Order: sequence, then structure tokens, then C-alpha cells
Amino acid sequence: MFNVLKGTHDVILDEARQYSYVEELLTKVASLYNYKEFRTPIIESSDLFLRSVGEGSDIVRKEMYTFYDKGDRLITLRPEMTAGTIRSMVNNKLFANQDFPIKAFYVGPNFRYERPQQGRYRQFNQFGIECCGVNSPYRDAEVISLGYNALKMLGFSNLKLKINYLGDEESRSKYRDALRDYFGNKIDEMCDDCKERFNKNVLRILDCKVPHDIEIVKDAPRIRDYLSENSKKYFSSILEFLDRIGVEYELDDNLVRGLDYYTGVVFEYHYVSNLGKNYGALGGGGHYSNLINEIGGPNLEGVGLAFGIERLVSVMQDDNLFDDLKSNLDVYIMPLGEKVLESANSLANFLRLNGFSTDICLENKNMSQMFKKAERRNASFAVIIGEDELNNDCIILKNLHTKEQIQVNNEDLLDKLDELFDEEEHHHHEEN
Amino acid sequence: MFNVLKGTHDVILDEARQYSYVEELLTKVASLYNYKEFRTPIIESSDLFLRSVGEGSDIVRKEMYTFYDKGDRLITLRPEMTAGTIRSMVNNKLFANQDFPIKAFYVGPNFRYERPQQGRYRQFNQFGIECCGVNSPYRDAEVISLGYNALKMLGFSNLKLKINYLGDEESRSKYRDALRDYFGNKIDEMCDDCKERFNKNVLRILDCKVPHDIEIVKDAPRIRDYLSENSKKYFSSILEFLDRIGVEYELDDNLVRGLDYYTGVVFEYHYVSNLGKNYGALGGGGHYSNLINEIGGPNLEGVGLAFGIERLVSVMQDDNLFDDLKSNLDVYIMPLGEKVLESANSLANFLRLNGFSTDICLENKNMSQMFKKAERRNASFAVIIGEDELNNDCIILKNLHTKEQIQVNNEDLLDKLDELFDEEEHHHHEEN
Repeated sequence: MFNVLKGTHDVILDEARQYSYVEELLTKVASLYNYKEFRTPIIESSDLFLRSVGEGSDIVRKEMYTFYDKGDRLITLRPEMTAGTIRSMVNNKLFANQDFPIKAFYVGPNFRYERPQQGRYRQFNQFGIECCGVNSPYRDAEVISLGYNALKMLGFSNLKLKINYLGDEESRSKYRDALRDYFGNKIDEMCDDCKERFNKNVLRILDCKVPHDIEIVKDAPRIRDYLSENSKKYFSSILEFLDRIGVEYELDDNLVRGLDYYTGVVFEYHYVSNLGKNYGALGGGGHYSNLINEIGGPNLEGVGLAFGIERLVSVMQDDNLFDDLKSNLDVYIMPLGEKVLESANSLANFLRLNGFSTDICLENKNMSQMFKKAERRNASFAVIIGEDELNNDCIILKNLHTKEQIQVNNEDLLDKLDELFDEEEHHHHEEN
Repeated sequence: MFNVLKGTHDVILDEARQYSYVEELLTKVASLYNYKEFRTPIIESSDLFLRSVGEGSDIVRKEMYTFYDKGDRLITLRPEMTAGTIRSMVNNKLFANQDFPIKAFYVGPNFRYERPQQGRYRQFNQFGIECCGVNSPYRDAEVISLGYNALKMLGFSNLKLKINYLGDEESRSKYRDALRDYFGNKIDEMCDDCKERFNKNVLRILDCKVPHDIEIVKDAPRIRDYLSENSKKYFSSILEFLDRIGVEYELDDNLVRGLDYYTGVVFEYHYVSNLGKNYGALGGGGHYSNLINEIGGPNLEGVGLAFGIERLVSVMQDDNLFDDLKSNLDVYIMPLGEKVLESANSLANFLRLNGFSTDICLENKNMSQMFKKAERRNASFAVIIGEDELNNDCIILKNLHTKEQIQVNNEDLLDKLDELFDEEEHHHHEEN
């Protein structure tokens, strides 16, 4: 017996349908905003992530799947998809044609060797977007609104956007100095991660989850007091637009996000269910000023966001947001005896080619067993074929919800099914 | 500048749409046959593939991406998806409930360290199905017909199914003896791969592509002369059903496929374009008697098939089967001046929430530049907003195909767009 690797998991049957439902809806919303899909490789040169994600980040320091391939290249299973997406824009010369923004969405698996815990997997799926080549508060707001609207459409009603502004280079530089001053005589009593962050990216200390450090962070200088006039104006344009389109937000001075490359606005979508359960962050993103350039592109800016699909699905499961998503089957064919098998199979083929999802019992079961199989497959109709029906070019059609059954000539079957499904549809609408 | 790894490639923009179109159609056909999605991890214990794919196969011998993770586990990037799919059926106890067949489909990336060549990638996507827990010529035929119908729906018109039957254990054992007798005094002059195959899986010699070896293979004993009565009957049931549903096939004695685990029927779909170009095999599959058991499941049989997505897309590109697939945009919003930006953005948000794919120019371009941007985005309508329109609660709506433009009050815009898109749709149908 073989097992899945620790920290990985199978997603099968109805749960796979939940995953594809979430991915399809996110993809559809991205298309409404005119984002196009980018599918970049899962394996990349390790350099790409060292440079872009940041050597000081936890991801690069502890969590990457990195190894030598048979050609002695140091390769990494991507831990996130922003770096590869921007690399592909550079390699495919999309910055050359000067038609901005370049709007990319992506969806697919990522890999981080994290300590396995509830809802955290070593292989996990992300959906995200990158809007590249522009620097405009309206583009930032557009990206934020895309994520917000997508979550609303998935059924998350009480969303709270947490938002912060890390400022332009000038503001950030002054703020970093202030943080170093503040933490300078306190860093010795803080955690090892913070000690490292103090040197590599002092902003990340604000993100620390250690209770003792949180107390120290509480009185740290706040970025908003260090923003330049330009930064203040830019940030308030974003907020005004969010007000205008009805996105509720909350300023959060300590929000910095886990990646080193964010510069301007950063944000997270937090969710509290109708029952009052606080699920925390469902995803987030931010603005980056230097990343495109660091990956070999021109000196242009961008903004992006990402959602963890595992996270969305698990919250939606827990909060019963998948209620209406039931896999079903249009027709289940029940052949009575060997002699009718070939006709029954041909009928299955015919119905499938005409757009009806169809399954058939070929395992020589009795009627009652076959009805159980139809029920487990959540079939709407049963088609029963015995020798009598075979000889008379007809079948028995049974509605598995109402239990009504009628005899239908083979040549009338398609029309009859169309008619019955229209009625079911109509009935379904009236019920809702 | 960072580059993709040798043998990998970016799939972006319109080409990504071609990939998702192919994957969505295959997924839809699988659903018509009542197959359910299985998403298994990309990383698995290496053992799984050593056992299932076969230690004698080229894949395991030369092509696997295998490495130790940080926990010293020997892991492999999956080279194919049948093994993982069946492993997931075993681990998730799907064989325990005795409701057969278990019908799985999968779609996703696989990894093989192959010599890069035209159309062959080290990371490549496969779609496939597995029908597990049954042994019936009709199930085999159902799987074959699924692949055949899916390819037809993708637009492949001249399909030729190549089919062979490797026989039950008894037939295959006799046939292997006959092959060893035949090749015994010829193997010294054959290629190194054949020498290895002679010991590990003599059937695979029939698959050799070396011209000198092909000559020798020509006169080798044929499996059809070694089939038991049961095997003959089973195979002819498959063929009869294929005849009945109009699948054209061709018997091919040398077809064995590249995986060691096939036992009964094996098949490939070959395609010759209307222009007479022979594209060779688009995909294929076969029946397996021992694989489920070897992966830790009960002693039950299965049948499956797989398509390479890269292969399908590249043939469809070459044969112009994507003609109708053009990405487009419903509305492109052109704001004239800073003052209208916020209203224009709100309008974009409003249209998106109402299901119209919408983009907006925020980059301060002049009219002619904005019309070029709209054209590059293949937009159907432009919405123009200047200060006059802002003050009068209206916009200018321009049909970018007919060049007609009208003034529309904000409150009437949705109705007007619905009406115009209905007309476009109608017009489009009349043209075709």
C-alpha cells in the first residue's frame, strides 16, 4: 500500500468539483476584468525565487523544494506564482509593446515544505492576478475590487478589507530608520525570527505572531506618520474609490504581508461568517515597485493579489457555502439481460453525443440493485431496456424523483427527455 | 534576465485559452460519461512509479525527476497520472464499497526528463480517464468511444483507431515464449534498448523504432495467433461494438504502448488531416489486469486512456482547428480627462458586476490611442465619457464593428447593451 506524502492530499469526487467550481468562478471574474491566463512552469531555476521572493523571507530560507536535475541545474518547485508570471512577461517581450497594463491571471499548484497543520499543505493551489506596467491608484483599487467582488460572488457576505500603505521609497526609508531606532534596544529580547528580520527587512517585525513581541510592536512608530505627501495622496485616492464602490475597509498599520517585494498598498480580505465565526484572512496582495525590474524587466510597477484555493474551499465547506453544488447524472440506463447489452450501450453512446450525461449498468445486477446504483449516482431518469422493449424499439423511462414511468419509442426519446428536463428546470425554479 | 528551464515553456494569452478550451471540452465529455475528477498530488513517493510504471520502462530508467526532500523522503514528480489516480482510489477506500466501475478523470502536469524535441516538453499536461473495478468488453469499448468522441468534438475528422489485444495471462505467456524463441538468435544484432527489453518485457521489442530492428520485427510471431478462445471472444465483442457505433479501426499487431502494465486491449487514435498530413498518434490507452492489485488494491481490472494536451493543441494549431477561438472584450471605457476618472471606474465596476467583460484606459491617452487599445483588446463596444457626459449623466456608446455611435443615459446603459449584444449575436448567427 502506498500513501500520499506527508502534507499532501488527494482531492477527489465531490470535493474536486468544489475546487473546480471555485477556480472557474475566480477565472470568470478575472475575465470580466479582462485578465488573460498565464500558465508558467512549475519547475523554475532556483535563482528566480531567491531574487524575487527575497532571501530574507521564510519561504526562501526554509520552505523551498530545491534540487539538482539530471543536467545539474539547481531547480525549485515554485513556492508562489508572481515571480514566474512576471518572468514570462519579460521573456515573451510583453513589456516591449508598451501597451499597458499587462493583465495576467494564474491558477495552479505551488509547493512549500511547511510544517503540516490544519488546512496547510505542502502542495497547495493558488489563484492570482498581476496587473503590470502601471502605477495608478485606480489600478490598485481595481485589483482590490476584483478580489472583493470575486469573494462576494463565491458567497462570502461579511468581508472586511484590511489595508495599509507601505509608502514610496522615500517614505519607507524614513520609516525603516524609525523602526530600527525603536527596536534597536529591544531586539535582544525578541524572537530569533525578529532578530533576523531586524537586519534583512525590519518591516516584517510588525508581522510577528509571538505574544511577547506583539506587545513590543504595539508602541512602534506607525507608517502613516512617515508617508510623504505624494504617498498620502495616492493612498487616499485608493480609499476614496473603495468608498465609492462600497468596499468596506479597515486601516491596519501592522499589515505588511509575508513577501519582501511589496512597496505601496498592501491588503487582506478577512471574513467573519453570519454565525460570527472569524475565519481570518482569505487572501490578499499588494503593490510592487521594483519586482519587475529585478526579474529583468523595465523599471515599471505592478500590483497583484492571490487566494489559496485550499483555504477558500475549506472555509466554504465549514460555512456551508457549497449547498447547491451537487454532482448529478441525467440518465442511468438499466439493461435487463445479456441480449440487450449492445443496444443499451449504443443508446448510451447516442445520448452522450446529444449532450445528456449518461451512465449504464453493465455488471449484471437485478432491478433493485440497479435502482440503488442510480440513486448513488444521483440520476434524474432511469432508462430500462428488456427484451420486450428491444423487440418493440422502445424503452421505459422513469423519473427517479416523481417515480412516474412511461414507455417511449426510441425515435421519440430525445424530444421526450428535452421536454422532461425543461419541466424539471421549471419546477426547480419555482421551488427556489 | 531569467529563462525558463530547458524543455519547459510558458503558455500565455491566446495560447493559454487554447489549452483551457481543449481541457474544458475533454472534461465536459468525461462528465457526459459520468467520470468524476481526481486531483492527486504532483509529488509522490518514488516507489509508486517504480512499481506501477515498471522498472523496465524508459520512463523509470531514464526520465524521472527524483530527489530527496528536506525530510529525506525519496520523492518523484509524477511522470504520468494513472498510478496516482489508482493509489488515491485505494487510499480513499473506493474499492471497499463495491459499487463499480469507479470512473475517474484527471487533467494536469507531468514531468519527464526527456531529450527536448519539437512538441516534447519536460513538463507536459495530460488528460486521462480510468475506469476501475470491472472487466467487460463493453467498458473497454466505452472508454475507447469516449476518446474517439472527444477528439471528434475537438474537430479531428479523419480519425483512425489502431487497436491490438495483448491477451489474457495465458495467451500472453505463450506469446512471450514464442517471441523469445524468435528473437533469441537475433537479439545480438539488435539495439541496446531491445537487448534490455528482451529480458525485462519482450513485448516492448515490437515497439522499437530503429529501422534495422523494424525489419526483424516484421516477421515476428503475431499475438493474434496466440490468443485463447476467451481472449478472442472478448476482443471481438469490443470490435463489434466499435463497428456498431461507427468507430473506424485498424488492427495493429505491433501496438504495445510504452507502459509495462497493459494486458488486454491497447489502442491509439491516429489522425490524418483533410490536407492529407499524417499527424500520427494523438493519444491512446489500454486495459490493465494487475495494476490495481500492485498498487495495493484488490485483484480487480481497469481500463484507461490519456491524451497529451500539448500534442492536441499543437496539432490543432497546425491544422487550423482553433479558427473560431478568439478572445474578446465586451466594453472598453475611454475616460476623457482626470475629472471623469472616478465615474469611469465606477462604471467599469458596475458593468463587470453585471456580467460584461470590461476594461478601461487609465493611462491618460488621446482618443486615437484609446481606439487602438480597444482594437488590440478586440472590444465590441467603446464607452466614451467626457465632462459633458459626466454632467449630463450619460455616455457615448460606440459599436466598434459598425462604427455607429449613440448617446445613452446612464440608467439605460445596461438595457441598451443587452439589446445590442442580442443583435450582434443574431447577426453573428446569420453570417455563419
